[in-house]
Amino acid sequence: MFDDLRELAARLASGIAPKTVSKLAINSFAEATPPRPRPFSLWSDEKGKICDYTSWASLTDRHFSGRHLRAAPESYSASLPEDAPYRSPDQVGQVTDLFRRTAFRECPRSTLLFPFFAQWFTDSFLRVDISDRRKNTSNHEIDLCQIYGLTEATTRTLRSLEGGRLRSSTVGGAEYPDTLFGADGEVKEHYRSLPYAREDEDGNSVLKAIFASRNLPDARKEFYFASGLERGNSNVGYTAMSTLFLREHNRLAGELKARNPSWDDERLFQTARNINIVLLLKIVIEDYINHISPIGADIFRVDPGFPEDEPWYRTNWIALEFDLLYRWHGLVTDNMRIDGTDYGQRDFRFNNKILTDHGLGTVLESGSRQSAGRISLQNTPTFLLEAEYHAIKMGRDFRLRGFNEYRVRFGLDPLDDFDELTGDPVLADRLLQLYGDIDNVEFFIGLFAEDPDGGALFGELMTTMVAHDAFTQALTNPLLSKNVFNRDTFTPYGMKTIRQTSRLSDLVARNVPDGEDLFISLSRPSQEGGDRGAGGAINVGADHGR
Amino acid sequence: MFDDLRELAARLASGIAPKTVSKLAINSFAEATPPRPRPFSLWSDEKGKICDYTSWASLTDRHFSGRHLRAAPESYSASLPEDAPYRSPDQVGQVTDLFRRTAFRECPRSTLLFPFFAQWFTDSFLRVDISDRRKNTSNHEIDLCQIYGLTEATTRTLRSLEGGRLRSSTVGGAEYPDTLFGADGEVKEHYRSLPYAREDEDGNSVLKAIFASRNLPDARKEFYFASGLERGNSNVGYTAMSTLFLREHNRLAGELKARNPSWDDERLFQTARNINIVLLLKIVIEDYINHISPIGADIFRVDPGFPEDEPWYRTNWIALEFDLLYRWHGLVTDNMRIDGTDYGQRDFRFNNKILTDHGLGTVLESGSRQSAGRISLQNTPTFLLEAEYHAIKMGRDFRLRGFNEYRVRFGLDPLDDFDELTGDPVLADRLLQLYGDIDNVEFFIGLFAEDPDGGALFGELMTTMVAHDAFTQALTNPLLSKNVFNRDTFTPYGMKTIRQTSRLSDLVARNVPDGEDLFISLSRPSQEGGDRGAGGAINVGADHGR
Repeated sequence: MFDDLRELAARLASGIAPKTVSKLAINSFAEATPPRPRPFSLWSDEKGKICDYTSWASLTDRHFSGRHLRAAPESYSASLPEDAPYRSPDQVGQVTDLFRRTAFRECPRSTLLFPFFAQWFTDSFLRVDISDRRKNTSNHEIDLCQIYGLTEATTRTLRSLEGGRLRSSTVGGAEYPDTLFGADGEVKEHYRSLPYAREDEDGNSVLKAIFASRNLPDARKEFYFASGLERGNSNVGYTAMSTLFLREHNRLAGELKARNPSWDDERLFQTARNINIVLLLKIVIEDYINHISPIGADIFRVDPGFPEDEPWYRTNWIALEFDLLYRWHGLVTDNMRIDGTDYGQRDFRFNNKILTDHGLGTVLESGSRQSAGRISLQNTPTFLLEAEYHAIKMGRDFRLRGFNEYRVRFGLDPLDDFDELTGDPVLADRLLQLYGDIDNVEFFIGLFAEDPDGGALFGELMTTMVAHDAFTQALTNPLLSKNVFNRDTFTPYGMKTIRQTSRLSDLVARNVPDGEDLFISLSRPSQEGGDRGAGGAINVGADHGR
Repeated sequence: MFDDLRELAARLASGIAPKTVSKLAINSFAEATPPRPRPFSLWSDEKGKICDYTSWASLTDRHFSGRHLRAAPESYSASLPEDAPYRSPDQVGQVTDLFRRTAFRECPRSTLLFPFFAQWFTDSFLRVDISDRRKNTSNHEIDLCQIYGLTEATTRTLRSLEGGRLRSSTVGGAEYPDTLFGADGEVKEHYRSLPYAREDEDGNSVLKAIFASRNLPDARKEFYFASGLERGNSNVGYTAMSTLFLREHNRLAGELKARNPSWDDERLFQTARNINIVLLLKIVIEDYINHISPIGADIFRVDPGFPEDEPWYRTNWIALEFDLLYRWHGLVTDNMRIDGTDYGQRDFRFNNKILTDHGLGTVLESGSRQSAGRISLQNTPTFLLEAEYHAIKMGRDFRLRGFNEYRVRFGLDPLDDFDELTGDPVLADRLLQLYGDIDNVEFFIGLFAEDPDGGALFGELMTTMVAHDAFTQALTNPLLSKNVFNRDTFTPYGMKTIRQTSRLSDLVARNVPDGEDLFISLSRPSQEGGDRGAGGAINVGADHGR
C-alpha cells in the first residue's frame, strides 16, 4: 500500500494535480475495508452478553461503540495451546508486561507537539464511558467539544453570551480559558452545572474525584480552567491546545463582529465555531495526518466535495478498535523540558501554572523542540502500564478477533510468522512463547508489535486503520459538505481564513505574540534530525532513558 | 417529470429490466433537490428566534426537525398587499377555512386501507413534540416503533422475553396486542413505565390526558392495547395495522425458533424484528408508493445495494415540510362501514372493540372495499379543521417559504398564475383574493390547492416531495445495506420471507385465517372503479357528503 502511495507522491513532481493525488491517496485508505453501516457494535443484551449477531440496536444506537469485526467465538481463546498464558484473563498482566519501557526509545520523526495534539484531539471522540465500557460518550464527530462541550447546555455555560465569545481569563496579559474556581476555592456559581462539576446528592462530582484520586493540592485550583470535557486540565499540552483554539475562536468572533455589526451574539458565536471546527479539520488532515503519513510529501489535503461522491461517505461511528489502537503511550517522555527547566510527568499533569508561567508560545515551541518517544511495545512509562492492562482486558472482554484477521479485513496479507511481525528476535521469541502461533496474536498486541516500515511511525495495520478511520470520519463532517462549505455559512472572511490555514503554526502565528517567529512543528526538523526515518535526536537535554 | 416516468414504465414492456426502471425512477425523485446534509433546521437560539443561518446544531442535532429551505425573511409577509388577510397571523382562520369540507369528494383511486396505512406508517417518524414544536421525537428511521417503541426500555417492556415474542392477548381466539389495563381498570404494573403511561408527581400521564380530553368511557379500557407509541389506539385502522405487524413478528419468532432451537430469546427477538422492519420497507415501496405513483405500473421496488452508490444515500432527517405535506385529512371519510354497520368518527376512534368484534381480516377487507376521500382543499372533515389551523400556523411560525419557491427547489417550474394551480375558477378567485399574487401562496396551501395531473392523487409538488423524502429515507435504512442485507442477518428463512412479501395482502394472507381469500388493497378495484383517474365509486353504502 505504501509503495502505491510513494508512486502517487512521485507523480506530484511530474505535474499531476495535487488535488487528484490527495483524492487517490485518501480513497486508497478509505476503501481499505467495507464502509459503514457495520453490522455489529458493542451493544449487548440485558445480561451483558456480547452479541455476535446483528440487531436493530447494533445498527442504530450510537451510544454503543462500533466494531469492525464480529465478536470472536467464545471458543477463540480455548483454541490456543493449553499452556499459553493468553488463555487466562488473569494473566493479562504477562501480556501487559510487553509494554513496559525498558529503555526510552526515541521517535525518529515526531516532536512532543505530536502527542500534545494527538491526545487532545482524540479526547473529543475516543470517549469510553467509564460507567459502561461498551459505550462512547462522544457525538462521534470532530466538533471541538474540548472547548465547546458535548451538549448545547455546556456550550452556553462556556459562552460569555456577548460578541459571540467564549468566556476567558487574562493571566499576565495573555488569554486563557476562564478559571473554573473562584477566589474562595469553590467552583464558580455559573460553572456548577457543567457535567463534571455537577454534584450528586452526596456532594460528589467528577471534578472532586479527580482532585481526590490525584491528590492534587488546592493551589492547583488557581489556574484550573473551565473546559468542555472533564479531562480538559489533564496536562499542560492538552490545555495549551485548548487555549490555542479558544483564542482563535474569540479572535474570529471579533473579526466577524467588525465585518457584520448587525449580527447578534448567537450568530457571531455559531459562525466562529463553524469556522473554528473547519480550521481543526484542515490541521488534522494537512498537518497531523501528513505528519503521520510515511510518504514524506504533504499529499493529503482537505478538498470539500469529492468525499460526498464516494461510497465511504457515511455517518460517523467510532469503533472500539479505533479507540484501542490510538493508545500511543510510547510517545510520552519521562520529562518535558520548557525553557531550560525539566518537568516530570507529575508536575506536567493537572498543573496549568506551567503554561501560564511560560506562556502558550514557549510551551508549544518547547514541545516542538523535543523528541517524542516511539510508538511500540517495550516503551510505555510505568505510570501508564495500568492503562495498557485495561486496554488489553477490554479487547478480550469484548472478544476482539486476532491481529491477522484485522490485517485481512483491512486488505493486507496475513503474516506467516513472528519474524515478519518484528525484526527483534528476542521480542519475537517472547511473543512465540506467549501465543504459540502468529494467528493467535491479539489485535492490540500485534498493532504495537509490528515494525514500522520505511519511515512510518508504526506498523502497516496501525497506519492503515488510523488513516481509514480518520479520513472516513473527518471528511464526512457536515461542515465540509457541498451544501454547507460556502460563504453563506462561513462569510467571505471565514472562507479566506480557512484557505489560509493548514498547520498548527498558522494558528500560533495568529494567536501568540510574535507567533510567526516560533518553531511550531509536529515533525522534527530535518536539518537536526536527518531524513525521515534516520532516527537522529533533537538535543534538548531532556533526561531520557532513566 | 411524470412524462419521463411514463416513458420509463412503457419501456418495461419492451424488455428493459424492471430493476433498471425502478432505479432510474427512484433516482429521478431522489435527485429532485440537493441531498442532505441540509444547512438549516428548526433549531433556534435560546430566545426561540428562528435562525436563518447555519449552526453546528442545525447540522447535527436531530432532535430538531430539518427544513428544506432557509427561513423566509421576517419581511416576507410584509411584502404582501396591505389588505391581504394572509398578512395577519390572527387571520390564519380565513385560510384554514379553505380546507372545510363542503361536500365529500371521493378519491378516484384509493381505498380506506390507504389512510389506515398512511396514518399508522407516518406516525412513526412525523412526530412533532407537542411541548416544543421545533422538535421531532422520532428516531428519523422507519423502525416499526409503533409496535417496538422508541427506546430500548420500551421495547423490553413490550416483549414477553420468551421465544423472541412480543406480549399479546387473545380475544375470540385471535391474537391482538396485549391489553394495557388490568381487570381493576388500572394500567398493568409492568406497563406503568411506558412513556405515555408513566405518571408524574401529580399523578398525571399522557394516557390519562387522552382519556380526559376525549372523554372516553371506562369501558374503552378493556381493549385498549399496549403499544409502542402514545397514539397506538387512536383509531381502529391504526390498531389494525399494529395488530397485523405484531402477529407477523410473533409468527416470525416461532418460525425462527423452530429452525434455530439453540437461539435464546434475545436473538430470536432481534432477528424477527429486523425481518419485520424489512417487510414494512418492502410494503412501503412496493405497495404503498406504487399505489401513490401516478404511473399505473408497479415500477418501484426494493433493490438493496444500489442506493449506497447514490449521492442521496445520507443519514435520515425528517424535515418540517415533509411533516406538513403529509396531513392528508381529505382522505378521511365521515363514516366507516364494516360488515354492513356504519361507524362515525367518534365510534371509530379509541375504540378497539370494533376491531375485536369484527376481527382483523374483516376490518382490513372492509377498509379495502370503501373509497377514501380526495386529498385537496375543501375536503377536510370539521373535526380536523383545528389540525389544519395548527399546520398553517406552524408553517408561518417557522417562516416557511412560499409554494413557488419549493417548486423551484424540487426542480419544477414556478407557476405563473392561480389558473395554473387549480382548474376550479371559484377557488382560484378565492386564492387570488387571499394572496394577491401566486408567489405569495403559502407552501401548505399551494400543496393542497394544486390539481392532480393525470391520475395522480395530488399535485405535482406534493408527489415529488413525498417521493423524494420517502425514497431517501426508506432506502437508506441500515437493514438494506449491502453489509447487512444477507442471510447472516436475517437467516435463509428470513430472506425467503422478505422475497415473498411485497404487499399488505401478503402479510394478511399469513396472519389472518383464510386471509389469502380476502380482498386487501390500497387501490380501488379497477373492475368496479374503472381505470385509474376515471373517478368511479365503490358502492359500499357509506353515508358520504352529509
